[in-house]
Amino acid sequence: MNVKDIKAFGTESADADLEQLTINRREITPKDVEIDIYYCGVCHSDLHFARNDWGFSVYPVVPGHEIVGKVIKTGEEVTKHKVGDLVAVGCLVDSCRTCNNCKNDLEQYCPEWVGTYGGHDKHLNMQTFGGYSESIVVDEDFVLVVPDNLDPAGVAPVLCAGITTWSPLRHWKIGSNSKVAVIGLGGLGHMAIKLADALGADVTLLSRSPNKTQDALDLGADRVVISTDENQMAEIQGHFDLIIDTVPYVHDINPYVGTLATNGTLVLVGYLGPLDPMLNSVPMIMGRKTVAGSLIGGIAETQELLDFCGKHGITSEIEMIRIQDINKAYERMLKSDVHYRFVIDMASLKNS
Amino acid sequence: MNVKDIKAFGTESADADLEQLTINRREITPKDVEIDIYYCGVCHSDLHFARNDWGFSVYPVVPGHEIVGKVIKTGEEVTKHKVGDLVAVGCLVDSCRTCNNCKNDLEQYCPEWVGTYGGHDKHLNMQTFGGYSESIVVDEDFVLVVPDNLDPAGVAPVLCAGITTWSPLRHWKIGSNSKVAVIGLGGLGHMAIKLADALGADVTLLSRSPNKTQDALDLGADRVVISTDENQMAEIQGHFDLIIDTVPYVHDINPYVGTLATNGTLVLVGYLGPLDPMLNSVPMIMGRKTVAGSLIGGIAETQELLDFCGKHGITSEIEMIRIQDINKAYERMLKSDVHYRFVIDMASLKNS
Repeated sequence: MNVKDIKAFGTESADADLEQLTINRREITPKDVEIDIYYCGVCHSDLHFARNDWGFSVYPVVPGHEIVGKVIKTGEEVTKHKVGDLVAVGCLVDSCRTCNNCKNDLEQYCPEWVGTYGGHDKHLNMQTFGGYSESIVVDEDFVLVVPDNLDPAGVAPVLCAGITTWSPLRHWKIGSNSKVAVIGLGGLGHMAIKLADALGADVTLLSRSPNKTQDALDLGADRVVISTDENQMAEIQGHFDLIIDTVPYVHDINPYVGTLATNGTLVLVGYLGPLDPMLNSVPMIMGRKTVAGSLIGGIAETQELLDFCGKHGITSEIEMIRIQDINKAYERMLKSDVHYRFVIDMASLKNS
Repeated sequence: MNVKDIKAFGTESADADLEQLTINRREITPKDVEIDIYYCGVCHSDLHFARNDWGFSVYPVVPGHEIVGKVIKTGEEVTKHKVGDLVAVGCLVDSCRTCNNCKNDLEQYCPEWVGTYGGHDKHLNMQTFGGYSESIVVDEDFVLVVPDNLDPAGVAPVLCAGITTWSPLRHWKIGSNSKVAVIGLGGLGHMAIKLADALGADVTLLSRSPNKTQDALDLGADRVVISTDENQMAEIQGHFDLIIDTVPYVHDINPYVGTLATNGTLVLVGYLGPLDPMLNSVPMIMGRKTVAGSLIGGIAETQELLDFCGKHGITSEIEMIRIQDINKAYERMLKSDVHYRFVIDMASLKNS
């Protein structure tokens, strides 16, 4: 298979800063689309993967799975996209296509799904490299169409932060009669508020501090409840149909379970690990309440979200950075010092 | 309010055996039905409540919420039942009738539902007494019709063990394309197998020991998987749409979560308390899997179940006892030495 050298930003080891690298991209196969990357969002997972926090990183690592760019070349069998189209690539670039999950448009739960970075590129028989790069080559079935009325930089975070919150909103059938709570006002949380609001739901931000109140209201929340205030929490017992918990570190979810209505669901989208302190089954049994997890979304669902964003004029709030500032951005991200998503202007890499 | 003395079996304190008592029943009000009790099933909750295991028992305690008998008197406004009807009473005898849960036939989740024993009788302003007694007086809306083709003694456990497993089977829409697992083969578990099988589902018993295999197959299970056998558990990863977990004591549910299919649910119906060891969110997020709780069922749903049992000829497997043997039965129940539910022949109380 023919390859070509391109510029990227990544790291050779868990404890090194990210720096400019040269990586190989495959030449397009008949079903591939080559994309000139304009913007790439910066996700917490990028940092976890660069630093091998999950223990399965393969180096070099080139992160980035919130990719927006323009089609510059298409394989001879490509029918879905053409040169010049504004397109996007999210967290996955392939899957087995044959399992029940794939058949049901749930590629994100396919046991063989291929991550945009750190996955296995079957053509090159090596790890995949993500969107912190000049360009990317992706099977057309995993390339999404970007509505042309949206700011393309603000679209980038929709591909991960957006779909991660959209998928539970849709799976649990949120609409104008629904009461939704969002825990955590970061990249995911701010998209959850915008999307739930656009679906017509009554939206509450559950926050530990009152500092975020005005921002949450501006984003579309109907109210903010301070989760450390017992009186405020007492008032919302049995209230919510769906709670989207975006908190990425271990935290006690028991107080939130009490705020679910009968048949309500708390869905974890941010924290991977043991639920410490222990989850108590009593309120779950006494109100048929459920605790669930949800992972990004499928390809069709992601396209549905992009179309919805186009219709409602929704993009992420972003802070644009140069690729050369990515290490500083990671440090700020660790302190939750970002409103609400860093997006890399990839011209900074191309011009370097 | 007029009352009358009747014979019952109960206890005056947490550490005393059950013995014969005289209790007051109210005379019927215009909406009440008086029922001559023929049979009463013996539930684990009876024992917990008699011994104040949950800390809110009020003495004297007269347990029993799996009641089958015949109508012997009706209030002047009663329209649903008439003298001579074979009827049943389950775990609740009243609710607020006005909250959203009540309006949605989910009286079991009404914050003011009145338990058949240990609840608050608003007419007498004292605790309610359950079915270990000669007769009971219940608002007609909480009295159920028993199909006349069923053995009335075998119907009694349907009122708690049956509905507790039926409600999740219905809520999670189990049918002929569903794969259901049942954990634990006791009173609840054996009803879960019968009901899931009658709904056309593929049914697996998950059991720690192979001793129960033939019984489970006889009850309608398609197979038994030994949950302590790693190879057998490996074969059923990602398999089940619904797992009904009937185990009444603390246990590790993490190995079972792995056997859920994408979108699958593990529903706890037996264990009230902290999930120890801690539940791990990783497999939940990686497969949109949920952990839920469920409590008995509503009145309409319980009638639906009784009608379903009539149509399919389903009753509980029972071991009939005399009321005078209840303390021995409790000791055997604690050792899971019952196939699969004790039912008290209430003639033993009336003739004493």
